[in-house]
Amino acid sequence: MDRRPGTTITHVKISVVGAGIVGSAVAHALAARGATVDLLDARGVGLGATRASAGILAPHIEGHIPQLRKLAVCSLALYDEFIRQVQQDSGLPVEYHRSGSVQVALDGEEAASLAETAESLRTAGVECSFLDEDGARRIEPALSPHVIAALVVPSHGHVRAAQLTDALAAAAQARGARLSTSAVLGIDGGQTAARITTSTGTIESDAVVVASGSWMIDSRPSEPPAMTPIRGQLVHVQADTVVATRVVWGRDCYLVPWRDRSVFIGATVEDVGFDDRTTVDGVRRLLNAAAHLVPSLGRAHIEQVRVGFRPKGRDELPTIGHSATMPSVFYAVGHYRNGVLLAPLTASLVADLVLEGRARPELALVSPARHS
Amino acid sequence: MDRRPGTTITHVKISVVGAGIVGSAVAHALAARGATVDLLDARGVGLGATRASAGILAPHIEGHIPQLRKLAVCSLALYDEFIRQVQQDSGLPVEYHRSGSVQVALDGEEAASLAETAESLRTAGVECSFLDEDGARRIEPALSPHVIAALVVPSHGHVRAAQLTDALAAAAQARGARLSTSAVLGIDGGQTAARITTSTGTIESDAVVVASGSWMIDSRPSEPPAMTPIRGQLVHVQADTVVATRVVWGRDCYLVPWRDRSVFIGATVEDVGFDDRTTVDGVRRLLNAAAHLVPSLGRAHIEQVRVGFRPKGRDELPTIGHSATMPSVFYAVGHYRNGVLLAPLTASLVADLVLEGRARPELALVSPARHS
Amino acid sequence: MDRRPGTTITHVKISVVGAGIVGSAVAHALAARGATVDLLDARGVGLGATRASAGILAPHIEGHIPQLRKLAVCSLALYDEFIRQVQQDSGLPVEYHRSGSVQVALDGEEAASLAETAESLRTAGVECSFLDEDGARRIEPALSPHVIAALVVPSHGHVRAAQLTDALAAAAQARGARLSTSAVLGIDGGQTAARITTSTGTIESDAVVVASGSWMIDSRPSEPPAMTPIRGQLVHVQADTVVATRVVWGRDCYLVPWRDRSVFIGATVEDVGFDDRTTVDGVRRLLNAAAHLVPSLGRAHIEQVRVGFRPKGRDELPTIGHSATMPSVFYAVGHYRNGVLLAPLTASLVADLVLEGRARPELALVSPARHS
Amino acid sequence: MDRRPGTTITHVKISVVGAGIVGSAVAHALAARGATVDLLDARGVGLGATRASAGILAPHIEGHIPQLRKLAVCSLALYDEFIRQVQQDSGLPVEYHRSGSVQVALDGEEAASLAETAESLRTAGVECSFLDEDGARRIEPALSPHVIAALVVPSHGHVRAAQLTDALAAAAQARGARLSTSAVLGIDGGQTAARITTSTGTIESDAVVVASGSWMIDSRPSEPPAMTPIRGQLVHVQADTVVATRVVWGRDCYLVPWRDRSVFIGATVEDVGFDDRTTVDGVRRLLNAAAHLVPSLGRAHIEQVRVGFRPKGRDELPTIGHSATMPSVFYAVGHYRNGVLLAPLTASLVADLVLEGRARPELALVSPARHS
Repeated sequence: MDRRPGTTITHVKISVVGAGIVGSAVAHALAARGATVDLLDARGVGLGATRASAGILAPHIEGHIPQLRKLAVCSLALYDEFIRQVQQDSGLPVEYHRSGSVQVALDGEEAASLAETAESLRTAGVECSFLDEDGARRIEPALSPHVIAALVVPSHGHVRAAQLTDALAAAAQARGARLSTSAVLGIDGGQTAARITTSTGTIESDAVVVASGSWMIDSRPSEPPAMTPIRGQLVHVQADTVVATRVVWGRDCYLVPWRDRSVFIGATVEDVGFDDRTTVDGVRRLLNAAAHLVPSLGRAHIEQVRVGFRPKGRDELPTIGHSATMPSVFYAVGHYRNGVLLAPLTASLVADLVLEGRARPELALVSPARHS
Repeated sequence: MDRRPGTTITHVKISVVGAGIVGSAVAHALAARGATVDLLDARGVGLGATRASAGILAPHIEGHIPQLRKLAVCSLALYDEFIRQVQQDSGLPVEYHRSGSVQVALDGEEAASLAETAESLRTAGVECSFLDEDGARRIEPALSPHVIAALVVPSHGHVRAAQLTDALAAAAQARGARLSTSAVLGIDGGQTAARITTSTGTIESDAVVVASGSWMIDSRPSEPPAMTPIRGQLVHVQADTVVATRVVWGRDCYLVPWRDRSVFIGATVEDVGFDDRTTVDGVRRLLNAAAHLVPSLGRAHIEQVRVGFRPKGRDELPTIGHSATMPSVFYAVGHYRNGVLLAPLTASLVADLVLEGRARPELALVSPARHS
Repeated sequence: MDRRPGTTITHVKISVVGAGIVGSAVAHALAARGATVDLLDARGVGLGATRASAGILAPHIEGHIPQLRKLAVCSLALYDEFIRQVQQDSGLPVEYHRSGSVQVALDGEEAASLAETAESLRTAGVECSFLDEDGARRIEPALSPHVIAALVVPSHGHVRAAQLTDALAAAAQARGARLSTSAVLGIDGGQTAARITTSTGTIESDAVVVASGSWMIDSRPSEPPAMTPIRGQLVHVQADTVVATRVVWGRDCYLVPWRDRSVFIGATVEDVGFDDRTTVDGVRRLLNAAAHLVPSLGRAHIEQVRVGFRPKGRDELPTIGHSATMPSVFYAVGHYRNGVLLAPLTASLVADLVLEGRARPELALVSPARHS
Repeated sequence: MDRRPGTTITHVKISVVGAGIVGSAVAHALAARGATVDLLDARGVGLGATRASAGILAPHIEGHIPQLRKLAVCSLALYDEFIRQVQQDSGLPVEYHRSGSVQVALDGEEAASLAETAESLRTAGVECSFLDEDGARRIEPALSPHVIAALVVPSHGHVRAAQLTDALAAAAQARGARLSTSAVLGIDGGQTAARITTSTGTIESDAVVVASGSWMIDSRPSEPPAMTPIRGQLVHVQADTVVATRVVWGRDCYLVPWRDRSVFIGATVEDVGFDDRTTVDGVRRLLNAAAHLVPSLGRAHIEQVRVGFRPKGRDELPTIGHSATMPSVFYAVGHYRNGVLLAPLTASLVADLVLEGRARPELALVSPARHS
C-alpha cells in the first residue's frame, strides 16, 4: 500500500482490532472514506473500557496529563459534528449534552487551586467562572454546604458512551464495514501487509489498526506497547429529583446526570487485573463521596454497578501511530480515562495516517516510537 | 368455641392472617394440633418483615427491651426441636447454626459495657466469655484491629429465615392447612366467631389470629394495636474467604455468615413508610460499618440488597393474646426485630390460648390489653 | 364544605390517599386550583400499579371495555397540555411520544378482525391505516414474517410512567401539597368531613379522595368498591438496534420502544394476590411472544423484570365519584390497565367534583353508585 | 529441569496460567507436592468457563465424545478424596452431592435410546436403572407427564463449581502458591525453561502450565492449540419446593438442584465470541425447556442469569500434555463442558508429567501432538 501524501488509495483493506469507542470510531472514519474494513472484537461492541465510562467531555478537568490537554480540546471541538454524523449514518439517537461542568472545592487548598486554574484558563482564552459557596449553589442548588467554591466551564459536556459506541459500530456497518467476533490471538506485521491470527483462521490486510485497549495482542516482530488494565466501578443510581444539570467533579468522585434523572457516580481506579466483580470497598467509597457532594443523593436508589477496564500505558498517554518496526501495523490504544473524549480526534488522525500516509503534528506526542 | 382449660377442641376452624415467620409458625402449630386452618397472605409466604431478616438467634444481644429477654431465652430453648419438626413435616432442609455470637467493642466505653454484660450474664448462669483484643482475633481471625474487646455467647445461633418460613408454610400445608392469597380488608370480631372481609369474599371462623406484622388490618369494634413499619435494608455479599463462624454484632451493623461464604450485612432501621427501595445512604452506611469490623469484607462482592418492614408497636414489645374486646380475635404482631427468634414460643403460646383457652403466664407482658 | 356549582371554595383541605399516577395527578390538579392537599402513600410515589406500567396511550387498542373508549379518547386529547403543565410545574423532563401504535395480526382471523376495526375507526373519524404484510414491514422493518397485517393509529403514544408520576408528585408539592408516608388504616366518612386513621395518628379533612388502587382501605359506614390486584410482570430489555418507533401490540405481548433503545415487553395479567416476585412462566411467555413479533429482539439483553399490581374492579371499569353513602369521601380507583391513559381526565373530573361540586356527565359510567 | 521418571524434583518453579477449575486444581496438586507455584490469572479465580458451570459430575451422560468417558469415569472416582483434600487444605466447605442423575426421555425415540444406554451401561458394569413413566415420577415426583422414561445412574453427582474453584485456589495458597493478576501476553518456550511476558514484566520458570481455557495465549515458537469460546448462559432460579434430588438431564436443558432449593437451569451452547451478555433467546429457551420437564418450575423465581465461556478444541477433546515443540510448556486446556468433572484427573496427570516426567497412558488420547 502506497501511503505517500497525496496518493489516492483505492481498494485498501484494513482490519481494526477492538470495537470499543476508539476502534468503532476509527472503523467508521475509515469506512466513510472508502476503505474496506473488518472490525474485530470477540466481546462485541463497547464491552471493554467503554462499559465503565461515564461519558464526561471535559478537557479542562480531565486532561490530567497537561500535555494531553491540547489534543483533548481539539477533539471536543469536533464533537458536535461527530455526533451529528454518527446519528445520521446509523439512524440511532445518542444522548449528548453540552451543559458544562462544575468542579468543586471542599477545602481552602482546593479552592485556591481552583481559583488558580480559573485564572490560567481565562488567560488561555477558555470561558469559565470561579464561584464562591453561594454562587455554586445558585447554579447547582443540590450541592452540599461542604462545597466552598466551584469552577464552571460552560463548554464541557457529557455523552452516553454506550449509545455512542453502538451507534458508531452501526454507522461503520452502514458504510460497509464487517463486524466479527473472532478472537485475535497474534499479529505478524510486515512492510506492506499484515497477517492476523484469529481463533477462526487468519486474515490478511493492507494494514491493521490495533484498538484493543487493555486487551493487548502479541504482535511480532516487535511487542505492543505495554498496557495495564485499570478497573473502574461506576454506580448507576436513580434520583427522584434533579441532582445537577452539569457534570459535577469532586476530589473523590464525579457525578454525571442524565435526562431520565439517573446519575452515574464514578469511578474507582484499581489495578487488579481483569477481575470484573464489584466490591464492597469500591461501592461504599463512591457512595460516600457522592453523598458528601450532594446530600440528596443519599435518598437515590441504586440501580446497578458497572465495571470496565481502562488501558493505561506507562506514561498514561495514549499511543497513536504506526509501529516503529512494522509499517503495516498502527496503534490507537492507551486512552486510559480519555477514550470517549479523544475518539473523534483519534479517528481522524488514524484515518489520515493510514489512508493518506499523512502524519499530522498532533501525533508527535503520542507516537509509538517513544516506547522504544 | 369453648376455650375453657382442659376442654378438647374438635372441628375448630381458625383463620391466620399473615404468612410471615410468625403466622406460618402459628398455622403449623394449630394444624399440627388438629385445627382446620386457613392461612391468608396476599403477598405470599415470607415476603414481609421476614424478607429483611438476617435470622439472628441471640436473646442476650438482641433483647433490647430487657423485659423481652426472658421470652427470647425460652424461645431459643425450643429452637432445636422446632427446626427438627418443621424439617420433618415439610421435607425441606433449613440452614441452621448454633455456633454462637461475638459482640464486639470498638472503644473503651463499649468494652466496659461488654465486660459488665459478661458479668451479669455469668451471674444469671449464661455461659459466655469476655475476650480482649487478642482473644477476639484468636477466635475470629478476620476481625479488624478496631475491635478491642468481645463478648462471646456460645449458645446463640442463626437460621436462614426465608428457608424456615417457606418450610413452616409447607409443613402447615402438609398438616392440612390451606394457603390463600386473598387480601384481607377488615375483621369484624364477635364473641364466639369472627368474619373476615377479603378481596374475594368473606370468611367465617371460630377464631382469627392476626399475624400480619406491619400490615395492620382494620378490626372492629376495637382498633388493632398500632404498628409502624420500620424498613430494614440488608446487604447480601459473597466473600472469598471465611469472614466469621459466629454472628458478629457491632454498634453500626451485624454480620451473619453462611455455609456458602455469603454474608448478610444488616440492617438499617428506618421509619419511611412502606417504600421498598434501596438507598445510597442505607447501603453505604452498612458497608462502611462492615468494612470497619472486618476489613477483608472490603473485597467481598455485592450480590443483592434486600428490603423488609418490621412491625414496631408503641412500646417495641410484641402484642400476643386475645383482643380486649373481641374474644374471637387474637393478635400475634409487633415482633419488630425479634420475629424469627420468638416464632417457636409465639406459636406455642397462641396454640395453647386459642385451642385450649390456656393463657400462659408469659402472655402477661405482651397482652393486647396493655394498649387499652 | 359547600360544593354547590359555582361556589368558590377557599381554604378547603383535602386528603388524597395513594400517590400512584392517579392520586398524584389528582393531588396536582387540586393543589393547582388552590386546595390544601395532603398526599398520603406509605410506599412512596409511583410504587404500586404504576411500577408495572408500560405507559401505553392507545384508547383505540386498550379500551377493552367498549364503554371506556370515549373517556379514554377524551383523556388522550388532554395529554399534550397535561405533560406540558407537569414539566413546567415540576421542572422535571418526562419522555413522551405521540408516534402512533401498530397492532399486528398473526393469522387470518386476527387480520379480518383488524380490518373490521379499521373500518369502524374510519367511520368514527379516527385516522388509521390497515396495512398488509409488506406495508407493515415497510413502516416497522423489524416485524417478523409472522405478521400478516397491521393496523396503524397515528394519534396513539407512550410515556415513561415512572417519570410522569414522579413529576406529578413533585409538581403537586411545588403547588403546596404535602407528601406523607403514613399508612392509612381506615376512613370514617361523614357528611361534610372525614377522618382518616393512619399509623401515626388521625387526619381530619373536608374531603378524602381514595386513589389507593389495589390497596383497598376499609372505609365505613359503607365498604369501598372491591378491587382485585392483578399482577403484571414487565420485562425491560436493551436492544442493539431500533426495534420499532411505535408501540407494537400483539395478541400475547406488547412492545414499547424508548429513546435509548430499551424496550418494555409486557405484560402478564395474573390474579395471585400481592406476591411481587417474578416467575419463570411469566418471563418466558413474554419473551416467547416478543421474539415471535420481532425476531431481532432475541438478541436483546435482559436488563430487569419489574412487577406491579393493577386494581381491577368487578366490571373492569374504574370507579370515580363520591361515595354513595359518605358525601365527604370520593373514589378514583380501579383504573386497572388504563391508569396512565386516564390520569388527566380523572384528575380533571375529580377536581371539578370535589372543589366545585360539579358532576360532569362522564362520571355517569364510572359512578360508585353502580356497585350498590 | 530433569524430568526423567523416578527423579526427585527439588526447588522446581512452575507458572500456571489460568485460575479456573483446571488451573487451580493443577496449582494445588503441584504445590502440595512441593513445587514453587505462581498461579496467574488477570481475571481472578473462577471467572472464566467456571462461571457458567452447573457442576454436573456425570460421565455416563456428559461424555458426549465416547472416547472421553474412560477419563471421566477415572476422574469421578477421585472426587470424594479430591473434595476431602481441598476442604482440609483450604478450610472452606464445598457443597457436594453424590445423589445420582436422572436422564429423561420425552418421546419414544429418546426412550429407546435410553433403554439401549441402560443396557450397555449394565454390560459395562455400571449400576443404573431404566424406569418407565411411573417409575420416573416415583423417584422424582416433580417430573412432568411429558417424561415417558428415565435412566437413573446413582453414582453421579454435582458440586458447586464456584465454591470448589475458590477452595482450590485457597488450598494452593495454603500450600505456598502465589496468586497474581498480571495479564499474560505471550509465552516463549525453551528446552528447559520458559519465559512469560506479562503486563507487569517477565517471569522465568522451569515450566509453564497453560490452563487459560478459551483465553489463548500466543506461545512461540509453536502456536497453542486453537480454542473457540462457547458461551453458556445459566439461569439461577429459586424454587419454593423440592424440584428434584438428582441432576435432571433433558434434551434441551438440565436442572441441578441445591440444598437451599435453588436450581441451576443450563445451559446455552453459543459460538458468539466473548460477548458476556444474557439474551432474550438464551433465557427463554432454557426456561421453556425447564418448565417442560418440571412444570412446578414455572412458579420459581428468577434470581440471576450467569454467563461463561467454555474452551472448545477442534475435536472437542481436551489437550493435556507437553507442547510438541517446547518441552518446558504444558497444556491443560480445552475441557469444554467437562472441566469440573475432569479436574481431579487432569491435576494428577499434569503433576506426574511436570514433576516426575511420567507420561501416564491416559495422556495418549489428549496429547497436544495430535494437533500437529
